[in-house]
Amino acid sequence: MENQIFELQYALDTFMFLICGALVMWMAAGFTLLESGLVRAKNTVEILTKNVALYSIACIMYMVCGYYFMYGGGFFLSGIEAFNLEEVLAASAENGFDGDSVYSGASDFFFQVVFVATAMSIVSGAVAERMKLWSFLIFAVVLTGFIYPMEGGWTWGGNDVFGMFNLGDKGFSDFAGSGIVHMAGAAAALSGVLLLGPRLGKYGKDGKAKAIPGANLPLATLGTFVLWMGWFGFNGGSVLKLGDAASAHSMAMVFLNTNGAAAGGLIAALLTSHILWGRADLTMALNGALAGLVAITAEPSTPTALQATLFGAAGGVLVVFSILALDKLKIDDPVGAISVHGTVGLLGLLLVPLTNDGASYGGQLLGAFTIFTWVFVTSFIVWFVLKLVMGIRVSEEEEYEGLDVGECGIEAYPEFKSA
Amino acid sequence: MENQIFELQYALDTFMFLICGALVMWMAAGFTLLESGLVRAKNTVEILTKNVALYSIACIMYMVCGYYFMYGGGFFLSGIEAFNLEEVLAASAENGFDGDSVYSGASDFFFQVVFVATAMSIVSGAVAERMKLWSFLIFAVVLTGFIYPMEGGWTWGGNDVFGMFNLGDKGFSDFAGSGIVHMAGAAAALSGVLLLGPRLGKYGKDGKAKAIPGANLPLATLGTFVLWMGWFGFNGGSVLKLGDAASAHSMAMVFLNTNGAAAGGLIAALLTSHILWGRADLTMALNGALAGLVAITAEPSTPTALQATLFGAAGGVLVVFSILALDKLKIDDPVGAISVHGTVGLLGLLLVPLTNDGASYGGQLLGAFTIFTWVFVTSFIVWFVLKLVMGIRVSEEEEYEGLDVGECGIEAYPEFKSA
Amino acid sequence: MENQIFELQYALDTFMFLICGALVMWMAAGFTLLESGLVRAKNTVEILTKNVALYSIACIMYMVCGYYFMYGGGFFLSGIEAFNLEEVLAASAENGFDGDSVYSGASDFFFQVVFVATAMSIVSGAVAERMKLWSFLIFAVVLTGFIYPMEGGWTWGGNDVFGMFNLGDKGFSDFAGSGIVHMAGAAAALSGVLLLGPRLGKYGKDGKAKAIPGANLPLATLGTFVLWMGWFGFNGGSVLKLGDAASAHSMAMVFLNTNGAAAGGLIAALLTSHILWGRADLTMALNGALAGLVAITAEPSTPTALQATLFGAAGGVLVVFSILALDKLKIDDPVGAISVHGTVGLLGLLLVPLTNDGASYGGQLLGAFTIFTWVFVTSFIVWFVLKLVMGIRVSEEEEYEGLDVGECGIEAYPEFKSA
Repeated sequence: MENQIFELQYALDTFMFLICGALVMWMAAGFTLLESGLVRAKNTVEILTKNVALYSIACIMYMVCGYYFMYGGGFFLSGIEAFNLEEVLAASAENGFDGDSVYSGASDFFFQVVFVATAMSIVSGAVAERMKLWSFLIFAVVLTGFIYPMEGGWTWGGNDVFGMFNLGDKGFSDFAGSGIVHMAGAAAALSGVLLLGPRLGKYGKDGKAKAIPGANLPLATLGTFVLWMGWFGFNGGSVLKLGDAASAHSMAMVFLNTNGAAAGGLIAALLTSHILWGRADLTMALNGALAGLVAITAEPSTPTALQATLFGAAGGVLVVFSILALDKLKIDDPVGAISVHGTVGLLGLLLVPLTNDGASYGGQLLGAFTIFTWVFVTSFIVWFVLKLVMGIRVSEEEEYEGLDVGECGIEAYPEFKSA
Repeated sequence: MENQIFELQYALDTFMFLICGALVMWMAAGFTLLESGLVRAKNTVEILTKNVALYSIACIMYMVCGYYFMYGGGFFLSGIEAFNLEEVLAASAENGFDGDSVYSGASDFFFQVVFVATAMSIVSGAVAERMKLWSFLIFAVVLTGFIYPMEGGWTWGGNDVFGMFNLGDKGFSDFAGSGIVHMAGAAAALSGVLLLGPRLGKYGKDGKAKAIPGANLPLATLGTFVLWMGWFGFNGGSVLKLGDAASAHSMAMVFLNTNGAAAGGLIAALLTSHILWGRADLTMALNGALAGLVAITAEPSTPTALQATLFGAAGGVLVVFSILALDKLKIDDPVGAISVHGTVGLLGLLLVPLTNDGASYGGQLLGAFTIFTWVFVTSFIVWFVLKLVMGIRVSEEEEYEGLDVGECGIEAYPEFKSA
Repeated sequence: MENQIFELQYALDTFMFLICGALVMWMAAGFTLLESGLVRAKNTVEILTKNVALYSIACIMYMVCGYYFMYGGGFFLSGIEAFNLEEVLAASAENGFDGDSVYSGASDFFFQVVFVATAMSIVSGAVAERMKLWSFLIFAVVLTGFIYPMEGGWTWGGNDVFGMFNLGDKGFSDFAGSGIVHMAGAAAALSGVLLLGPRLGKYGKDGKAKAIPGANLPLATLGTFVLWMGWFGFNGGSVLKLGDAASAHSMAMVFLNTNGAAAGGLIAALLTSHILWGRADLTMALNGALAGLVAITAEPSTPTALQATLFGAAGGVLVVFSILALDKLKIDDPVGAISVHGTVGLLGLLLVPLTNDGASYGGQLLGAFTIFTWVFVTSFIVWFVLKLVMGIRVSEEEEYEGLDVGECGIEAYPEFKSA
């Protein structure tokens, strides 16, 4: 009968990974909606294409080699389909009911692979409206197959294929990836944006940033809701276990805090925009919610509900000023992705020691520095090589006409007349 | 080993609340889509902003004080993060395997908080296209922090902070909130609409209502699907337990009946529109599905599948005539929310005694009267004070130009030329 | 205590069916979005109406008689609400912990009913932009209440109301319905399209197909993501059991392979379009992802992750050529549904014997032939009778003006000016 209890626990934990993974997969749709709502109509098909393709590339590359680089095993998930009840029961008995979780390796891969796609989704928004489609997709191959898995291996994976180091041993803690996923994506995006330059007409001759409004704000709003919902899986599943009471309670706190941080971030950003400009800026509010989510992601299990809401609010305020600052620096990020995931991702890492004794500021800074440097430098090299070999920016004419016609040959809204 | 079984049950029930709660949170997106599809393009950003902000306010206010008013505990969810395995096991042993559920209090909050947001979402649709953003948001603070939690305390909560009364003792039964959530939201909406008056141009000099078509019907349709899906969590999670066979079967009946009622409501409203006007009115069909959902919400567990479908169909017919009647009375509700959630919410309450012996018509009427009166009167007072202090209606000029430019400074579809 | 374990298993399996069913229900939204994004603006309300109504009809008809024809029991799900703990425990004890699953019959219906709707959703896309609304809905009554349940009974149901035959005994294997659901829907669609003829202006006098671009590609993309997500429930739930370790692992493999096949299909179709036409065709990429999903549906549990990705890629290449071939034959399918679900559905069936020893090519061909013939012939008869009695095609004038005004009396985007 004890074995049956272990089997139920295995089944429950596996199911949890699958459901949480499906929610994170759903975030790919959220990024797609957010970005396609915030770009101009003429670049919409191209951003849609980038998003569906990068998700697919992430799934393939992480299967081919990424998971191996991050967690070991073998190329092509070799043997992940094998199942041996004796081994399951032996592992369960060894770990004990309240110890580490035992679950299907296939469910673990499914949960992890959608994280890779999230990291890559962050990039597409920042480089939108001017980057060549195929250069972007080749970059996606490298990021999802190599760059992300390497730093993931040093942190979550405990895997060190090339004999490098393990950040977890150095007081670094990042529960669900404020740094490992979000700031990493932002670092890759930043290096691309620096090489790419701003969109035509974004900065006037006087140096002032010109607002380029998104074409479809209901889509952007829906995208934010989708991301918010999917984040329950992102953070909740990162508890990595459901099937005992303490783990279940921990997961409940994570859901609660994730939701509270997003709410805090949204309201804080809305009020900030009201104070700064006297209007309720929907785009800032949406970015505020996402910033709240990023801020809590590094540690959603230990804060109280009130703390989580305040941490989210801090993210919501910070993201507004970060967006303004990047515009001052003429770093053109059409959807604010570098601020939401990068600046606030760092904030998230630095908030951890406030509620989690297992993390130290030294460890957090070391981790942040390592992740940022690794991803920024390697990404820069890849972007740079791509720029030399095939170019990364479309022609001025194509940028003016829109990438949809140039790259994809169709329009997103062919029947709606432009104003 | 018995303790491990209790822990698994605790984990399963907690997970159920989290997944169902995530589905109800998704309903916030559904309302947002529905409303942004049914208003005119010029008021779209504003309705989007209201919806994302009201959801966030609901989450914050219910955490600050609402949950305390409804269920006790303390302000700011004090201590909800605490976990004690001994207590969990003792409570489980006392309740017994097939008795009341034992689960994480954090998961309960997460599930309950999304209900508050649902009640508030109902309001935003009815007052759309003419109410000031910030007046609306201040109202949201009061409704979600005080008005709703009070009546929730008299019914589901069994909490009576101010020494009032408990409707559950008086033969009132409302499984998932046809009255407590939906009719309550409609009552708050109705009081606002009465003080606000109809949109400019809605009623001609001859008194006839003029149709003001929504700008984006695919969004409205998607919103209905999202609400339909989210409702599985809304009603299903209201079983409040999953982890024994009888509860699981009950939840399955709830899913089945919720789906059937929506289907019945949609087809009934579609046929009604075909009979009345000779055309298949999509908007009515969507409201019919929502009406079916509201009608079954007061008791989705005891009807047979056929009964549930017929109850939903009754809701679907009723909602059409209710919308027509409100237009006769010049009560302008752009999305039909008062009819869907108020009129049909009452129907839902009155259908309960047909299949549930624990409810009486007297109890249902008393409950409906109490909830409606409480919410309507307190809301009216709040709206009235807001009207005096800061106004609740935008200027005629702003209403004509659209609230998006006036309140939010941006447009929803800046590139699409208006016809 | 053993009984408590059985109850937990029952609860977990029931919950799994409910969650997977909710995901499949979500696919109805996916089809709606996909189709409303791929038709022209003037036919959007009508396709939305068809989709919400067909889902509702499917739910009602399958409750009335379809489930009875497919699985037995009785009309109107008679008695499905009954629950007897003794019987549950006796059945559990008989089946054993690792044997067949025991779960609520209501959850089984909920899971099955959304499959019926999927089959019918396939039809609406293929006949879009020219078929009369009410003829279509009457067809939906027959397909969901009779045609599909009959062939479902010969395969999954093991039910043979009219004394016909059981394909399962003949070496036919279709895990989640590449043939039983998808190819069946395509067969019904094909018969309708043949009787209906192509849209006005689709094929020029020179016989060449003219591209008629969809009006809203973000919607189509979102629809694809929704279908992709819902497919985890479609294939995952088809494991039919979660609550032991081997079943849970099997479900994890199914999620993993479903995702991989979609990714493979998308990239393969994108590359194929790039090679053929030198552009990244988003519509083809989306159809490639769906083709990958259809291809893996007949057997998602036995392939390795690499095999699943390659099977999906095969589907993604095939669907492009199938779409081109149907256009050569002047079979006008506005969304490519016949190719995605029919051609690739057949591929899916034929891939099964490669990884599943329980299936034979003979059995697969026999099954495919039986299903296709049954659905095609019966559907043809129904369409033909409808054509005689009330007509199935709108007038040329209405087709030119758009079905929205003619059938539904409203427009999808009344404020956006057409180019």
